[in-house]
Amino acid sequence: MNADAIRARDAALGIFWHLAPQAPAPGGTLSALTLAVKDNVDVAGMPTTAGLAAFEGRVASRDAPCVAAIRRHGVTILGKVAMHEGALGATTDLPRPCQNPLRPGFTPGGSSGGSGAAVAAGFADLAIGTDTMGSVRIPAAYCGVAGLKPTAGLVPRSGVVPLSPSLDHVGMLARTPRLAALGLQAMAGEDAADPASRPAPRGWHAVPAEPVVVHGIRIGLPQPALDATVEPAIRTAWDAAAGRLRDLGARVEAVPVPGWEPSPTRRAGLLLIEAEAAALHEALIGDPAAATPGFRAALAYGRDLTGIRLARALFRLAEARGGALRALDRCDALLLPTAPQRAFAHGSPPPHDQADFCAIANIAGLPALALPWPAADGGLPASVQLVGHPHAEALLVGLAEALSAP
Amino acid sequence: MNADAIRARDAALGIFWHLAPQAPAPGGTLSALTLAVKDNVDVAGMPTTAGLAAFEGRVASRDAPCVAAIRRHGVTILGKVAMHEGALGATTDLPRPCQNPLRPGFTPGGSSGGSGAAVAAGFADLAIGTDTMGSVRIPAAYCGVAGLKPTAGLVPRSGVVPLSPSLDHVGMLARTPRLAALGLQAMAGEDAADPASRPAPRGWHAVPAEPVVVHGIRIGLPQPALDATVEPAIRTAWDAAAGRLRDLGARVEAVPVPGWEPSPTRRAGLLLIEAEAAALHEALIGDPAAATPGFRAALAYGRDLTGIRLARALFRLAEARGGALRALDRCDALLLPTAPQRAFAHGSPPPHDQADFCAIANIAGLPALALPWPAADGGLPASVQLVGHPHAEALLVGLAEALSAP
Repeated sequence: MNADAIRARDAALGIFWHLAPQAPAPGGTLSALTLAVKDNVDVAGMPTTAGLAAFEGRVASRDAPCVAAIRRHGVTILGKVAMHEGALGATTDLPRPCQNPLRPGFTPGGSSGGSGAAVAAGFADLAIGTDTMGSVRIPAAYCGVAGLKPTAGLVPRSGVVPLSPSLDHVGMLARTPRLAALGLQAMAGEDAADPASRPAPRGWHAVPAEPVVVHGIRIGLPQPALDATVEPAIRTAWDAAAGRLRDLGARVEAVPVPGWEPSPTRRAGLLLIEAEAAALHEALIGDPAAATPGFRAALAYGRDLTGIRLARALFRLAEARGGALRALDRCDALLLPTAPQRAFAHGSPPPHDQADFCAIANIAGLPALALPWPAADGGLPASVQLVGHPHAEALLVGLAEALSAP
Repeated sequence: MNADAIRARDAALGIFWHLAPQAPAPGGTLSALTLAVKDNVDVAGMPTTAGLAAFEGRVASRDAPCVAAIRRHGVTILGKVAMHEGALGATTDLPRPCQNPLRPGFTPGGSSGGSGAAVAAGFADLAIGTDTMGSVRIPAAYCGVAGLKPTAGLVPRSGVVPLSPSLDHVGMLARTPRLAALGLQAMAGEDAADPASRPAPRGWHAVPAEPVVVHGIRIGLPQPALDATVEPAIRTAWDAAAGRLRDLGARVEAVPVPGWEPSPTRRAGLLLIEAEAAALHEALIGDPAAATPGFRAALAYGRDLTGIRLARALFRLAEARGGALRALDRCDALLLPTAPQRAFAHGSPPPHDQADFCAIANIAGLPALALPWPAADGGLPASVQLVGHPHAEALLVGLAEALSAP
């Protein structure tokens, strides 16, 4: 789709905040593909606002290292897409609601809402998102596309407006898991400016070299997710995905995840995010023109909370991290819903539990893949999530392909 | 040395707080050895005070898992030894000063001061210590013995009075690195009650299977330590150890450790410790009978600090951790001083920088070994420290043995 066609169709959707395709580098393995970039990731010559009024008018002078890396692979960078204000939230409704291409009037999710919507609308083959507690996977789920959050450290966060360095990840959305993996793979690498970034292990790829043999693979269904309340269409999809893996010969069993309580753990993560975001963006708190009252209140909360409260949150996060690693001691991957619900209408109150199933992978630094799954009721799609051992992106992609095969 | 002989000699030293040898389990690889246990680690039937007045009279009903594990190897557990109040400090001077057996009137260091002193006095072959920012390695250094802090997660901390779960480690002190490694090895293993504990990797041992071939080994001298001010005797010892490794064929070179600033990084660690200790021991803060004013003030500080301050400390710790891992990308082990100074007289003000060179291994979760080194002036010994890749304890022990060989 050329830029004029995108612009015409996007008038009703509000996905692109800045649409100005750049000539691609010649050659490269991704030369046939187009890329949309979340507006908190620097692209040379384009604005980077992170959805914050305070950052309006900022233009990046150079690419974030992850963008520079994928650019070298020959993608055409189309522009910058909508996101939830400051990456702290999952509706993507400001300055005007970004529409879910699957059902206008509904949210595409967030915070990488524009990234999910750009792929779902067919505007871009690939879309860079960021994911602090699910911000790549939730919009992937709501928009019916694939979303891949890598192992912590694999994609450098330099040149990305930070929210919470302890939990922030850069990830990739695309129509298929393989496309998302191809794009993700092109962004991996160490960068000196991100202290947590690390070289990929020797021989690492996100794209599986050959189809995964599902027979004998051990899949864990996390008991705390089994015990949680989810929308019936989500439960049905999860059951169906588990059944499909069983049919393919996987050993699918419930696994305990000691110390992980989806809602309290997610709230502990939010407390850490609020404190870290306050430390990074303190100047915005007192400036009514810088951000919405809600965003500034969240940061003020993080600024003012006591050491004891934050320490207790850290204890809870350490428990959940340990529990996730122990669950993976018993299996090759975890299968659970991406979000407890499907997309909902803009304007309806966002459910508190949107990130309940996603946060654990950020907390534990584990790779996680959101895979769309048709809903039994024929409505908006559901989504299931695979979570793997560190650097096992390719296994997740292979399992997702086995799950999606006709 | 039997209990009566220890008791007689210890009257002037004040090392044992509780001396009551327990009959060893029959057989076992450590059956010829005696063990002293720091008083923050549970031994069934013995007190556990952690040096806090608040905990006086507490008796453990069962062994901490690390004690239970080493007990099964047949050691004779002698009793509980002195430590700095609450493990937060490095002089071990309350309720009366524990004496350094190498020079009475001087501190054995801390917080595991009694553990270092028990080994130096010949009272015990092995001594369990805990190490949050150097509390195993500093007393090992001051007392002229070996101290081994393992990779994070290798020895469970359950049954140990916590100070800062993000940084706490259990370690081992002994006359030689090999003995310390033998004792440490016997404590390794996962325990469900410590969420950060993990099974040792398959085939892991702390004791090297054969002598390490030093030729070709890459040793990094951390640039921030080279730039720091240390006592001349410490610098001379460090130079001598580096020279010895060079003579043995190692490639010894300065390495950058981006993001590690020994004093500011240690202060960031202290802030996290204060907040976590406050969260764990909040009830002690307001009770003048529970602990000294200094201890309670440190916890009150941690209780009351803002989210922003703690978040900024977390950023600094993440930077130092990343820097340490990057330094190890360039070499097999780091060589640096254990502490910037040797033991000092009780009553003189403790130097602020005691833990400056030790904290980095806790922050990064890396194994670290303190090796005594004779001082050129013939006075109290110096100590050098080896820091390795995760689970490379055996390499550190092998290097230390090569360094100590005549």
